[in-house]
Amino acid sequence: MSVDPEKCVLVAVFAANVRRIRLERGISQEALAERAGVHRTYVGMLERGEKNVTIYNIERIAKALKVEPAALLQKGR
Amino acid sequence: MSVDPEKCVLVAVFAANVRRIRLERGISQEALAERAGVHRTYVGMLERGEKNVTIYNIERIAKALKVEPAALLQKGR
Repeated sequence: MSVDPEKCVLVAVFAANVRRIRLERGISQEALAERAGVHRTYVGMLERGEKNVTIYNIERIAKALKVEPAALLQKGR
Repeated sequence: MSVDPEKCVLVAVFAANVRRIRLERGISQEALAERAGVHRTYVGMLERGEKNVTIYNIERIAKALKVEPAALLQKGR
């Protein structure tokens, strides 16, 4: 699902956290996508805050990044 | 969206946290639903782990419970 960014601050927080942690891990969007079992373009959309991501995919991304799911929703990191 | 609980541990964590925090706040499912702008039956489904909830609705529920969204994904509370 796509999302109106003005309606959901949390989407932007999640997007920034995924991008930051992925870069900290030194892995590409392609590698993250493969580990999480999602499409590469989907990771790009997540990192641009364009997806109203579901909790199932939050869990898959968190596992692929080896981080607690809650960490992906934490602000001000 | 409905969800296969065997595929998503995080759904059960979220469900338990919503229920626990709602009860700590002393509010009914109806009151939470009204505050969050969702249907009462939807809150029941969330608390039973039957919904692959989206980040947009995680944010709405968190605001309605006056809790940080990340707290709803934290295990072992």
